[in-house]
Amino acid sequence: MPGNSFGQLFRVTTAGESHGPGNVCIIDGVPPGLELSEADLTPDLARRRPGQSKITTQRDEPDHPQILSGVFEGKTTGTSIAILIENQDQRSRDYGDIQHKYRPGHADYTFDAKYGRRDYRGGGRSSARETTVRVAAGAIAKKLLAQAHGIQIVGFVTQVGDITANIPNPEQITLAQVESNIVRCPDPVAATKMIELIEKMRSERDSIGGIAQIVTTNVPPGLGEPVFDKLKADLGKAMFSLPAVLGVEYGNGFGCATLRGTENNDLFATDSNGNVITTTNRHGGMLGGISSGQPITLRCAVKPTSSLPQDQQTVTTEGEPTTIATKGRHDPCLLPRFIPMAEAMMAIVLADHMLRQRAQRGTF
Amino acid sequence: MPGNSFGQLFRVTTAGESHGPGNVCIIDGVPPGLELSEADLTPDLARRRPGQSKITTQRDEPDHPQILSGVFEGKTTGTSIAILIENQDQRSRDYGDIQHKYRPGHADYTFDAKYGRRDYRGGGRSSARETTVRVAAGAIAKKLLAQAHGIQIVGFVTQVGDITANIPNPEQITLAQVESNIVRCPDPVAATKMIELIEKMRSERDSIGGIAQIVTTNVPPGLGEPVFDKLKADLGKAMFSLPAVLGVEYGNGFGCATLRGTENNDLFATDSNGNVITTTNRHGGMLGGISSGQPITLRCAVKPTSSLPQDQQTVTTEGEPTTIATKGRHDPCLLPRFIPMAEAMMAIVLADHMLRQRAQRGTF
Amino acid sequence: MPGNSFGQLFRVTTAGESHGPGNVCIIDGVPPGLELSEADLTPDLARRRPGQSKITTQRDEPDHPQILSGVFEGKTTGTSIAILIENQDQRSRDYGDIQHKYRPGHADYTFDAKYGRRDYRGGGRSSARETTVRVAAGAIAKKLLAQAHGIQIVGFVTQVGDITANIPNPEQITLAQVESNIVRCPDPVAATKMIELIEKMRSERDSIGGIAQIVTTNVPPGLGEPVFDKLKADLGKAMFSLPAVLGVEYGNGFGCATLRGTENNDLFATDSNGNVITTTNRHGGMLGGISSGQPITLRCAVKPTSSLPQDQQTVTTEGEPTTIATKGRHDPCLLPRFIPMAEAMMAIVLADHMLRQRAQRGTF
Amino acid sequence: MPGNSFGQLFRVTTAGESHGPGNVCIIDGVPPGLELSEADLTPDLARRRPGQSKITTQRDEPDHPQILSGVFEGKTTGTSIAILIENQDQRSRDYGDIQHKYRPGHADYTFDAKYGRRDYRGGGRSSARETTVRVAAGAIAKKLLAQAHGIQIVGFVTQVGDITANIPNPEQITLAQVESNIVRCPDPVAATKMIELIEKMRSERDSIGGIAQIVTTNVPPGLGEPVFDKLKADLGKAMFSLPAVLGVEYGNGFGCATLRGTENNDLFATDSNGNVITTTNRHGGMLGGISSGQPITLRCAVKPTSSLPQDQQTVTTEGEPTTIATKGRHDPCLLPRFIPMAEAMMAIVLADHMLRQRAQRGTF
Repeated sequence: MPGNSFGQLFRVTTAGESHGPGNVCIIDGVPPGLELSEADLTPDLARRRPGQSKITTQRDEPDHPQILSGVFEGKTTGTSIAILIENQDQRSRDYGDIQHKYRPGHADYTFDAKYGRRDYRGGGRSSARETTVRVAAGAIAKKLLAQAHGIQIVGFVTQVGDITANIPNPEQITLAQVESNIVRCPDPVAATKMIELIEKMRSERDSIGGIAQIVTTNVPPGLGEPVFDKLKADLGKAMFSLPAVLGVEYGNGFGCATLRGTENNDLFATDSNGNVITTTNRHGGMLGGISSGQPITLRCAVKPTSSLPQDQQTVTTEGEPTTIATKGRHDPCLLPRFIPMAEAMMAIVLADHMLRQRAQRGTF
Repeated sequence: MPGNSFGQLFRVTTAGESHGPGNVCIIDGVPPGLELSEADLTPDLARRRPGQSKITTQRDEPDHPQILSGVFEGKTTGTSIAILIENQDQRSRDYGDIQHKYRPGHADYTFDAKYGRRDYRGGGRSSARETTVRVAAGAIAKKLLAQAHGIQIVGFVTQVGDITANIPNPEQITLAQVESNIVRCPDPVAATKMIELIEKMRSERDSIGGIAQIVTTNVPPGLGEPVFDKLKADLGKAMFSLPAVLGVEYGNGFGCATLRGTENNDLFATDSNGNVITTTNRHGGMLGGISSGQPITLRCAVKPTSSLPQDQQTVTTEGEPTTIATKGRHDPCLLPRFIPMAEAMMAIVLADHMLRQRAQRGTF
Repeated sequence: MPGNSFGQLFRVTTAGESHGPGNVCIIDGVPPGLELSEADLTPDLARRRPGQSKITTQRDEPDHPQILSGVFEGKTTGTSIAILIENQDQRSRDYGDIQHKYRPGHADYTFDAKYGRRDYRGGGRSSARETTVRVAAGAIAKKLLAQAHGIQIVGFVTQVGDITANIPNPEQITLAQVESNIVRCPDPVAATKMIELIEKMRSERDSIGGIAQIVTTNVPPGLGEPVFDKLKADLGKAMFSLPAVLGVEYGNGFGCATLRGTENNDLFATDSNGNVITTTNRHGGMLGGISSGQPITLRCAVKPTSSLPQDQQTVTTEGEPTTIATKGRHDPCLLPRFIPMAEAMMAIVLADHMLRQRAQRGTF
Repeated sequence: MPGNSFGQLFRVTTAGESHGPGNVCIIDGVPPGLELSEADLTPDLARRRPGQSKITTQRDEPDHPQILSGVFEGKTTGTSIAILIENQDQRSRDYGDIQHKYRPGHADYTFDAKYGRRDYRGGGRSSARETTVRVAAGAIAKKLLAQAHGIQIVGFVTQVGDITANIPNPEQITLAQVESNIVRCPDPVAATKMIELIEKMRSERDSIGGIAQIVTTNVPPGLGEPVFDKLKADLGKAMFSLPAVLGVEYGNGFGCATLRGTENNDLFATDSNGNVITTTNRHGGMLGGISSGQPITLRCAVKPTSSLPQDQQTVTTEGEPTTIATKGRHDPCLLPRFIPMAEAMMAIVLADHMLRQRAQRGTF
């Protein structure tokens, strides 16, 4: 099927552009009886919202979600849930630059190559604005996961530029720690430096990359399919489907390249309840692509914002050399707003695999 | 749908276990009229075959593919192609250890948690033997890509343990260079050291991880879907669906975290034919998840083999502490045989997106 | 995936209930560059609209479609198209009867059995109001089919109760003939009798069944897949997915049971252009599930409206015997409004298979 | 995805041709722990087998199924099950007629139009031989359904030509009654006449059509999805995916056209256990596309065999007028062997929806 749907049983289908009337998603497969209202969706939308702090873009969008179907008398009905988030701050403006020139690092050229045309207003369908409805769908998935298994998903920033956070116990970070500062880094010392660096980038009309980590706890063992739909495969797809992600790794990730088997293997033991555990978690919570019961840990490399308010070399749509500079609002660092997006995709994948496992095993 | 199928239009469905009668795949969606015989499949199968060199497992499998359908008078008919690769070297043996104990780093425990039971003979469905038919399917995809666009896929080993290859022009590496040594590293100096290290690992009853790089050239711009089925998302899923992969990155990958936008953006220009190009390729050949026309470059981190011929701490299926050691044949380093597997998945993804693009645009 | 999506490449996903805010669909896979505006959708929506004539329900809905995405500067962009049709005539009313009693012939009981709860307002998700957005999606498919091949889809009523139309040349019926009367039967004599019968049913607080025929001309040979996704299979699914359809047949349909092979086979010949044709069309335009180039003809049996404004025996949701009578607005015969729904589903299936054929063969 | 797969969670993918090495299917999604051996598959394969009686084709195929994967120690493992049925009776013969001429009623022409080429040996992929593996997959589905709910599927022939069976209680027919004669009609008087008619057809080098009915009992209420994947829609697709089916109807089917709502509605009541039932079953066991708990009843119209051992008018692949006569073996009536095929498809659809319901509701 075409590329605007995700998931097999917990299935999200989206539509919408940056400067059209709004973004829509239809979420299919949600079990009936889940308490749900728009208030469940707003906290994560607020975390994703532009204009939330001095280090994000200043585009001002309330991002109010309207549930159009699938919820009745405060609970899901089991039928498809449509959510609409209207665009408000569609400034009347001159898009001539984007219309006629290819922005470096953006999808302007590749959309033209693919479709022969594009909605050039603010990036159209290639804008990260499409992630609003992903975050809304993810909030439903999170609620489902929390109720079924107490699954908790916490994402945070571990690196911005050369500033690396010191996080001794990543599996114990709480949402409150993450939200204690605007850069969403649970190491307060590093957070302060990151904020300074991001502000420096803005003042220098530049941007900066970074790394985000997502940790999910209380995942029961047994989620994920062998072969193609390994949990690590579906999570990998989910993360790479987010804008600006250039790398994904689990557990000790690229660090495994220099390790021996005896150094890398996590040994099995039993905990005090007799459950099988591993004594370390270098594997990142999945073995053979199936959850092991240990926390799922992944890291995403996020590139520096491509939009820059300074001249960059490029070509026009006719192939003539020119320069382009982004006018106005942009995020000098994508990481703070990336966190809720990545959490949402994590939640959608896990909810999907939870339903898949229930289909085959009849449990949960 | 369940997890044994991959791709939307070029669709591969597999079955088979390590020590059952054999592995099967059904490939659906292949255009009619493609010349195809079993001889097209054997070169890559030989590159994946166990027992191919002194640094791989010594299990001896001819891996002869039988095409059971979909080819008539030497050409594809357009209907589904079934391929059977029988298992030959199914040694009669005592599987008691694997049956009753969980091997560290393997899927024994997670399969039990998922299904309540498992085929414990040699790992059953979780064995990398299932990749035989992926490689066969990939060979068909490669042929299709070469004929349609001259697309070439070349994978090679860039790191084993601490030994890093020096590859100044990764986009120009040829298959002949890769196949010039048994570790599949195009830097001959590094290759020698890698082979020595792998032999050392074997002698020390240990294993070692590494990094593989896959480069694909001549990809036309426009492949990949916006939003969820970005080309980088589907490639990421494909790579993470392979056993032992803990990390995937494109272009400059995790290195983007420390870069500024002005350092990371690839600038647009035109080549002598008037085609839009980027003057550098830090983006790895995809922008907005759609191919840019530049070579697609990705790297996979592959963990050290989990099977070790020395005692490791673990528990029995009843949760009792014990130790386990792999008896006999194993790969001390997965990288040399990983290359054809990763190339195959790259080919399958690109063939799929080529057909998807043709569906919507009517070209190619 | 869950049941609110249809089609592989031309893919329609829907949401919405009878008395919620509205109905939404997302259409994925539409080729870029198709001229499209809301005006393209309104004619078929008007044909489906309640309150269009004296023989339909008097619920008054303007059914104005809002295109929320995927169209820019008057043409499709190739990205997903969202359409919203708000519900206007949501009378504030007492739903106590439907809430606590199972209406005969309706899905009240089966929804409760399936989901454990339901949106009882006007049938909720089981209401035929969900077909509004199918008709909108079908209008896009029709436009695509007409532009690509001149494909024309014309549906009409051939039977209401015992009144059977005399239609000597069903393959030549035009939209104008169909729309020349409110019952959509191109035999004016029969149409008059049908209208009288339907008015009689309304006055007697009853309803009546009937048969619709859909004819599609200019379908090129080669659409449809062998085995499971035969064109007749996908069309059959499409028609049976519409409310109230109890039978579907192609060509001479159930009449084939009494025929010999020599009577039933259509013989091949060539037309004046050298094209292969059949001299008769008992096969209904598909052989082996693949279009033959002859007109596709199918008939649907549509049951009499289940909602009746007279007391019928039933039980409460607690299982107590009771009676229920529909209050107010209903269609005494579903057939006139069924025509645009069936045409829409025919169009969606053909557009999907047209894109699928183009993916594999690279033509069209 | 391409057209050789069926089902969402209980998913069957097939390959194979009439005169190639054999037919293969991969069945994905089967729950683990189901006892399964090849002996479970052979009874239905024997009912489908050519050469089973004097009124079927005399092609002699043992149709022995080989389970290649997914079963271990006598039980399913939960991973994909591959089944291979080799072709034995591939007579060396002259296919010149089929190669160069289009058989009336067959897919020779449409395959050429679709693919530009075809495997002409015995019809290749368009041959009903592909249904062998469907029957094998259906046998697994039947076993699953019987164990989960005691669901029983019984198909039988109700009409051959003008001979109509008298079956007062179709919902109580047993497999033993069906198998008591070679035409699979539980009315022994009609069965004798049907056999005579079929033998007459053979002697006159002709063929005859008929009608089959499939009844499924003990289906729990709640299976099927609203909107597109209604149970009647998926069953309709399943039946129309079988060769030669020109019509499908449920409950009173086309007979509903002449009925009033008061005559057609089935009234709700409760049985002695307090379960909600309908007092009649004109609806065929589904309301709103969801199972009602009443027996599911459907009828298929099956056309007379297109292959005839007498000259029929046709054209060559070059468009020249000619005649063609089938040489040798054919079924003068498809109905007796159609029964196990239709039962298999019924079983596959129900198993799929049973798993889908379990995914969303966590029961069964």
